[in-house]
Amino acid sequence: MFDPAPFDPAGPVLGIDPGLSRCGYGVVASERNRPRAIGYGVITTPPDAALPERLLELDDELRLLMAQTRPSAVAVERVLFQSNARTAISVGQASGLALVAAARLGIPVVLYSPNEVKLAVTGNGRADKAAVQMMVARLLDLPGVPKPADAADALALACCHLWRAPLAAQVGDNIGGRVGDNIGGRVGTR
Amino acid sequence: MFDPAPFDPAGPVLGIDPGLSRCGYGVVASERNRPRAIGYGVITTPPDAALPERLLELDDELRLLMAQTRPSAVAVERVLFQSNARTAISVGQASGLALVAAARLGIPVVLYSPNEVKLAVTGNGRADKAAVQMMVARLLDLPGVPKPADAADALALACCHLWRAPLAAQVGDNIGGRVGDNIGGRVGTR
Repeated sequence: MFDPAPFDPAGPVLGIDPGLSRCGYGVVASERNRPRAIGYGVITTPPDAALPERLLELDDELRLLMAQTRPSAVAVERVLFQSNARTAISVGQASGLALVAAARLGIPVVLYSPNEVKLAVTGNGRADKAAVQMMVARLLDLPGVPKPADAADALALACCHLWRAPLAAQVGDNIGGRVGDNIGGRVGTR
Repeated sequence: MFDPAPFDPAGPVLGIDPGLSRCGYGVVASERNRPRAIGYGVITTPPDAALPERLLELDDELRLLMAQTRPSAVAVERVLFQSNARTAISVGQASGLALVAAARLGIPVVLYSPNEVKLAVTGNGRADKAAVQMMVARLLDLPGVPKPADAADALALACCHLWRAPLAAQVGDNIGGRVGDNIGGRVGTR
């Protein structure tokens, strides 16, 4: 279908907000220490198709996206809680495909919880969705809030990784650690 | 790694009880209208490895299993409810990989709920795990209950499909329908 391109260590960060009906993605590069949105959107699968075919279609799209964007890292939302098990299962299915697609291409994958993303982008781990989306638009110099919401969430994930990864390396801690406590102030400084 | 062998319409049924730490599988063929266990076991992934690597390892094993057994169908447990979201997510991740691996090879995939499996194997949709496992051993002429439990559950899924698929075709209903109401009596007749 396409060649599995090796990952590019200087490539952008690909954020993925996993979902079966709507899987958001956002590609953000760092240019002179400022984030720039290269692209974003949503992968959808037809709700009336059989589940295996929907997942296969999503998997194809994710692999194509990674081969085309050649990211240096993939940032995926770590889903910690879902109000209903049905959603948790299908979010799990979508995220599993994203993680394997990246791992198969040798692209480092980092998981961030929603609160980590909120903290990194707005300085407040309990910020509401609207605040996160507004900050994403501002930080990326977009003319308005990126739509749909899943794409904005994916851009927020990519931004979160752009800030947290160098900071984590600097502190010498691993990325999943408690480094986020310091990030709030740093994000708003542009 | 291996050639994606086309599926074999006369091949056995591969049952999969999805899980990240332990993913059960069971391969059951129909010989002169009697089920025979060709193989069963569990795919495990190291709990101390990173999640993307664990999922990649599971994906490799599932694809290898399908290429080697060349099943006519893959029967996967439809997870409807999990007591905690963490389990639901990781079961979702594992099941997503199984569904895509089968779909990519052109192998038909059928999902069965735990109650459908219990009903097909024991005649009682609320049977306990021990009863299901004992019936699996009896139906497959195994010397004892297959261990571990995940492998026994996968064999039960494969048996469930062996009985339900022809019956569903006969009744002219689709497999997800209410056909199961008739199956209880039929299963115990050997």
